[in-house]
Amino acid sequence: MDISGVRALLFDTYGTVVDYRSGVIAACTAFGAERGLSADWPAFVDAWRAGPRAAMDAVRAGDRPWTDLETLRREVLDRLVADFGLTGVTEEDKDRLNAAWDRLDPWPDAVPGLMRLKRKFLIAPLSNGTTRGMVAIARHAGLPWDLILASDTRHCYKPDAGTYRMAIELLGPAPEQVMMVAAHNYDLKAAQGHGMPTAFVVRPTEHGPAQTRDLTPEGDWDVSVDSFPALADALRA
Amino acid sequence: MDISGVRALLFDTYGTVVDYRSGVIAACTAFGAERGLSADWPAFVDAWRAGPRAAMDAVRAGDRPWTDLETLRREVLDRLVADFGLTGVTEEDKDRLNAAWDRLDPWPDAVPGLMRLKRKFLIAPLSNGTTRGMVAIARHAGLPWDLILASDTRHCYKPDAGTYRMAIELLGPAPEQVMMVAAHNYDLKAAQGHGMPTAFVVRPTEHGPAQTRDLTPEGDWDVSVDSFPALADALRA
Repeated sequence: MDISGVRALLFDTYGTVVDYRSGVIAACTAFGAERGLSADWPAFVDAWRAGPRAAMDAVRAGDRPWTDLETLRREVLDRLVADFGLTGVTEEDKDRLNAAWDRLDPWPDAVPGLMRLKRKFLIAPLSNGTTRGMVAIARHAGLPWDLILASDTRHCYKPDAGTYRMAIELLGPAPEQVMMVAAHNYDLKAAQGHGMPTAFVVRPTEHGPAQTRDLTPEGDWDVSVDSFPALADALRA
Repeated sequence: MDISGVRALLFDTYGTVVDYRSGVIAACTAFGAERGLSADWPAFVDAWRAGPRAAMDAVRAGDRPWTDLETLRREVLDRLVADFGLTGVTEEDKDRLNAAWDRLDPWPDAVPGLMRLKRKFLIAPLSNGTTRGMVAIARHAGLPWDLILASDTRHCYKPDAGTYRMAIELLGPAPEQVMMVAAHNYDLKAAQGHGMPTAFVVRPTEHGPAQTRDLTPEGDWDVSVDSFPALADALRA
């Protein structure tokens, strides 16, 4: 695809811009140490990350009314605390743990790359998180977004069409003006299906040291790189 | 109302944050000088500002499909160019003139006030403009928004309920956490009707030197001030 007309870049955020796994593991480990609770925290966090998927699918299928990701994560946390046999964990503790998803550090290359990209393009997240969560992460991590687009903006989870159509309508209006940037092939595949240009940024340890998926581009993406500065180079920003 | 729980401030933008009238008059005057066209440019801009109202009302009533303000302004401009007898104005010229609404300067107190307010609150526009236009103005004027909420976010013009409900849902969820800031009493009245705290900032020359409306608070607003730093003082930011 000719990508010379791109004027806005939309970024998947959890995993692509911020290292959610290390951040949430650190918060859980600190909490466990404080309370004398031991658990396989990496396994706990992996289950937490994967947990909301079934509920999101139910929302996407129309089998459940709109429910945002913060609420779904909190539900999963209730279940995991029981499954992992963690005792003495109060509702307040769980609210505090859930907020760990708002205090995530960026991958080291993310902010320098975004600063360069912002000189040439509008930049925004396009995330399955909440607007409020995206603002919290942006403030914590120093992400210089021009605007926030999240799943609660129009009550639509990726990879549903509404998410990409919203981005194209608001920042295009031509699809070829709005590029999707993600570390996840499924997200790029959906965006490309709506005519958006695509950039794959590999994040080989997003899911931990034993990561097996999204290690290579699995589609004909317009750009494939290993960092945001490399993306800026590819887009001449 | 107890305003101690406020955590987000939503700002009307045209007139409240930026001086649209001076900016658009300057752009039209420069265009006229370049083309040797003379007109009462302040009257032209006042008609341009008021022009989209009927079409916005038709959209709000469901008599016309969603159409954004940039498109409506462009339609009004077609009509005004004819009404004012301006000759030799091409479609390209009109596109360029329409873009004057994206390059507006802030009131001198706006950015210093927003910088202070941002330390304590989430800040965002809640405008009948477009998302794209709000980003353009933010970049031009240096407005440090955390996010953008505009009429095209959910296809809803103020003072319709959907606009305020969106802000409350995304940044509350309690209405008393989300304050509306505007130079326009109608906007505050609608926000208050949804339980939002309200702040009136008088902009006595927004509509020009002969302004007759919105010179005083016409409701029981929680704060009434004459600048954004005074708003920051009132909110202890």
